[in-house]
Amino acid sequence: MAEIKNVTAGIDIGGTNTVFGLVDKNGNILSKDLIPTKGHKSFEEFIYFSASKIKMLLNSKSYNLKLKGIGIGAPNGNIFRGTIEHAANLDWKGILPVAGLLKKEFNLPVKVTNDANAAALGEKLFGNAKHIDNFIEITLGTGLGSGIFAEGKLLYGHSGFAGELGHVIVKENGRQCGCGRKGCLETYVSATGLLSTVKELVSDTEEVSMMRDIDFNTLTSKDVYDFAKNGDILALKAFDFTAYILGRALADFTAVLSPEKIFLFGGLAEAGDLLLKPAEKYMNEDLLRVYKNTVSIEKSGLKHGEAAILGAAALIWEEIGKG
Amino acid sequence: MAEIKNVTAGIDIGGTNTVFGLVDKNGNILSKDLIPTKGHKSFEEFIYFSASKIKMLLNSKSYNLKLKGIGIGAPNGNIFRGTIEHAANLDWKGILPVAGLLKKEFNLPVKVTNDANAAALGEKLFGNAKHIDNFIEITLGTGLGSGIFAEGKLLYGHSGFAGELGHVIVKENGRQCGCGRKGCLETYVSATGLLSTVKELVSDTEEVSMMRDIDFNTLTSKDVYDFAKNGDILALKAFDFTAYILGRALADFTAVLSPEKIFLFGGLAEAGDLLLKPAEKYMNEDLLRVYKNTVSIEKSGLKHGEAAILGAAALIWEEIGKG
Repeated sequence: MAEIKNVTAGIDIGGTNTVFGLVDKNGNILSKDLIPTKGHKSFEEFIYFSASKIKMLLNSKSYNLKLKGIGIGAPNGNIFRGTIEHAANLDWKGILPVAGLLKKEFNLPVKVTNDANAAALGEKLFGNAKHIDNFIEITLGTGLGSGIFAEGKLLYGHSGFAGELGHVIVKENGRQCGCGRKGCLETYVSATGLLSTVKELVSDTEEVSMMRDIDFNTLTSKDVYDFAKNGDILALKAFDFTAYILGRALADFTAVLSPEKIFLFGGLAEAGDLLLKPAEKYMNEDLLRVYKNTVSIEKSGLKHGEAAILGAAALIWEEIGKG
Repeated sequence: MAEIKNVTAGIDIGGTNTVFGLVDKNGNILSKDLIPTKGHKSFEEFIYFSASKIKMLLNSKSYNLKLKGIGIGAPNGNIFRGTIEHAANLDWKGILPVAGLLKKEFNLPVKVTNDANAAALGEKLFGNAKHIDNFIEITLGTGLGSGIFAEGKLLYGHSGFAGELGHVIVKENGRQCGCGRKGCLETYVSATGLLSTVKELVSDTEEVSMMRDIDFNTLTSKDVYDFAKNGDILALKAFDFTAYILGRALADFTAVLSPEKIFLFGGLAEAGDLLLKPAEKYMNEDLLRVYKNTVSIEKSGLKHGEAAILGAAALIWEEIGKG
């Protein structure tokens, strides 16, 4: 009889797709699958469908897998209540008892948190933060998400929602944010924020740029990156401004948390020399003396396509231990 | 023979005076004393003198006291290295090995951190935070100090200097701060900040005020409080502006830490209805939805004259346990 291998399931619930994977204690994804998040009759049916997908993954291997629990990364996931609460980009509104529904199917530990907290846990267990007790994980996508490790523990805070650095206000009466307030960090530092900056530079400056001839509705942050790489001054300025806002915000977060590392993850994080290095320069210029040379910005050690699953699966590996 | 009572010593090293006290496990100060901080031949002599004072306190009681360790609250106190580092308002410059020197005298545990961290520990062990795992302690004096409890642990961070909320920048190109940067929170929210606000309002507005006839060199924050209490519009506006800046900053800190309580301590914190209540109002207006009704601002439960000693003594009680 084949050896039994312990795995945990990681589920990443996104606005478009929901991704599943089975993960061993070393962070190897043994198998994965995905379903569309939209188009289900109810949240209950969506969960039932997801559960059947996980069961299929478990049975699809030629060796024996033993499921130890299920971790979920989801927008506004609440670790204390096992719920998804008022998630703006999901079709289901209100408070969704995601952990309770999955527990009924599997009778195993089920934990849920937001995707950025999951990414931070993934970084700690399987990425570049294995020996680091104080760090910030920043995920740069459409918005800016974050997870914080402080004194070796993932910070949930009293509400379970600690670490919403994307919604720290960096400009008084600044850009309108989807949260209803103005000047949030993520309106400047995110794919969306970069594009807003390009638009502002196009209308507020005389800078010559290839981007002036492009339909903004089709422009992506990747395009801006390509233009910048080709020397487009306006695109370079847009990255520099983004790095400036990020660097100054990180200097402030350092005065709160004093992290050893700040890991950037996601599309924009790939723009190393255009974002990461100048952000570190601006942060260092702005650091209080006692923090000089105590903190650096680095790329996440998690692979793009794997981070969400690994992070979600890490919720359970962290609880039951890898030994 | 009399019963032996265990105590820890708390030392608060301030710019003017250094205060000592012997504290039992319930937070009772059994005896205390003070010496001037300035005027000693060297830091070593200052420590030797302090040690002899503690020994005298131990022997001055009619019952037997057993010293279990010494905790120190000091500006720029570093818990990891047992040092005071580059403290701006002490005569001795550079890095001072305060814990090492006291250990030689007593051969007992000695711990040092900054005064605001000590106050947070005092709040946790002896004040209003006994059952609270996530809170921020803010000390309002000449400047703004802070100590942070996250997930039940005092946050030191990688450098040992986490929790310098007074040096989070709240206004781009704002008021000049003693740290060399501009717009730090403490340039607005502190006794000094309140007086700066009064000066600005006097020169920038036409508001009638009794304070227009006063020599600013003699004006204190307590005076401004008294004027406000007597209905002086300008004084009331100064408090309202201070509360506004504080409230907005606390909304941002909540997006990082999600505390359950924010405790205010120090002179300005006594201005309850003038500062605490409006700060809470402004904070609530600015909170991200998920944090609504999860956080409140309260007065510290530590007595003004006792907090520094209790907090310093708590460094040791926390380590050895009160049982």
